[in-house]
Amino acid sequence: MSEILGFIGLGIMGRPMALNLLRAGHELQVHARRAASMQPLADAGAQTCASPAEVARRADVIFTMVADTPDVEAVILGEQGVIQGARPGSVIVDMSTISASATRRIAERLGERGVEMLDAPVSGGEAGAIEGKLSIMVGGSQGAFRRVLPLLQVMGQNVVHIGDIGAGQVCKSCNQVVVGATIAGVAEAILLAQASGVDAARVREALLGGFANSRVLEVHGQRMIDDDFKPGFKARLHQKDMRILGEAAAELGLCLPSAAMISQYLNALVGQGLGDLDSAAIAKILQALNGREPSG
Amino acid sequence: MSEILGFIGLGIMGRPMALNLLRAGHELQVHARRAASMQPLADAGAQTCASPAEVARRADVIFTMVADTPDVEAVILGEQGVIQGARPGSVIVDMSTISASATRRIAERLGERGVEMLDAPVSGGEAGAIEGKLSIMVGGSQGAFRRVLPLLQVMGQNVVHIGDIGAGQVCKSCNQVVVGATIAGVAEAILLAQASGVDAARVREALLGGFANSRVLEVHGQRMIDDDFKPGFKARLHQKDMRILGEAAAELGLCLPSAAMISQYLNALVGQGLGDLDSAAIAKILQALNGREPSG
Repeated sequence: MSEILGFIGLGIMGRPMALNLLRAGHELQVHARRAASMQPLADAGAQTCASPAEVARRADVIFTMVADTPDVEAVILGEQGVIQGARPGSVIVDMSTISASATRRIAERLGERGVEMLDAPVSGGEAGAIEGKLSIMVGGSQGAFRRVLPLLQVMGQNVVHIGDIGAGQVCKSCNQVVVGATIAGVAEAILLAQASGVDAARVREALLGGFANSRVLEVHGQRMIDDDFKPGFKARLHQKDMRILGEAAAELGLCLPSAAMISQYLNALVGQGLGDLDSAAIAKILQALNGREPSG
Repeated sequence: MSEILGFIGLGIMGRPMALNLLRAGHELQVHARRAASMQPLADAGAQTCASPAEVARRADVIFTMVADTPDVEAVILGEQGVIQGARPGSVIVDMSTISASATRRIAERLGERGVEMLDAPVSGGEAGAIEGKLSIMVGGSQGAFRRVLPLLQVMGQNVVHIGDIGAGQVCKSCNQVVVGATIAGVAEAILLAQASGVDAARVREALLGGFANSRVLEVHGQRMIDDDFKPGFKARLHQKDMRILGEAAAELGLCLPSAAMISQYLNALVGQGLGDLDSAAIAKILQALNGREPSG
């Protein structure tokens, strides 16, 4: 008999992810704070629940996809939280992007009740969620990973078990600093080309053929040349992820200069009301810093 | 009748590049400051010349591949320089990595004598030079580019005409800031993983499957994980290229924060006697900054 699934958090990411599980033929119990968010799932055949605890009572594997660390803490450890309803032997799979150390603390609390937890943050954005093509970075036990892998593969294409609980969140932070640093470098290259009177499109093309090649140069480089920052991945979400990374760096006592610079750029972007643009719009802040109009 | 070629500067890069031209069946006039540097070319059938001027007198297309801006100025504009021997209608192709603005000044001086110039800096290192697989970024007139393209294709695989004179050098600077910024980001990601007790190799693998994918993550990420910084591209050469970029930024009045950070890392690396390591060894400076031993 196949396991009953639960899904908590039905926003821009969670809704299409839950719908993909439903369409794959799974029985699904769902909860969201707003009833309106549950409606599309109910219409597609999911059972709605009044609280995270109720989802947990009815389901064997419970996915959570909410905004930030305090939201996960509330949904799992709160008064009507998952922990109040989960049975020993259940697995909680948190797919939100939150603090790795908070994740480990939550997992410990669940462990005391015989409930296992995996952290499984994603990258790939709304488009990846809709198409079931997310990258999923997983932390937790090998056994729990094997148990939920077929379910994660319904939602994602590139599902990797990174290590123990929290390792998925660490990997997500690693992803965000690499993407951010590459965006900053590509933005400087494009600005330098333009300020030198050189066609940035030709430069991008030449660089793609060599050692500077990256997905960021390919996709975000084109966005910068076109001055078209329709997301993609919103700057305010990248800012949030860099805040989580910054908290981890402080906890670990690490000095990460690129990460600091990217955070500052994203602060400026969000502070100027541009947080709903793609995070490649860091290039706009660099342009402004240099008194230049965008190129597009 | 095919054109007679000249090649000035027969160091680690110039020697294999000149040998490839010779092996492709071209008549080649060569010059280097040290007679010993000319010997392998003479053994392979090249004619040796006493000065750059003599090369220019005998050749129709003259390649230069020397260390830095003052070297190019000396070799082209000096007392025994190319300009003293070059005939109207000849083309000078400078493949060194030097200042774009100095390049434009040199080209203007040559232009007064009816001699055309292209700037054609390369990336791909010694291995690329030996295998004839360099990336070559070219600035100058369309006509001169078409004339020398078959020759450049003997030395390189990815030959792109970027724009007017100096545009090749601008593109090379763009390449170096993108590569440097990506190295810094990847180094921070790997440090964060290690400091968090997460297997950096698994993180690299997961990130390669998503938006953080880059050649730097693939090649330099592995170097960092192995703590093996055999070049590759030497840090002291990357430092030189970033100095050239820094001069350009100052001339243009540009603030480029990533470029500044990378330059500082490279200063520390070269200053600690590690300039002959691959520039991915920026990761070692980040480790040292954080009081950590390398991982390998």
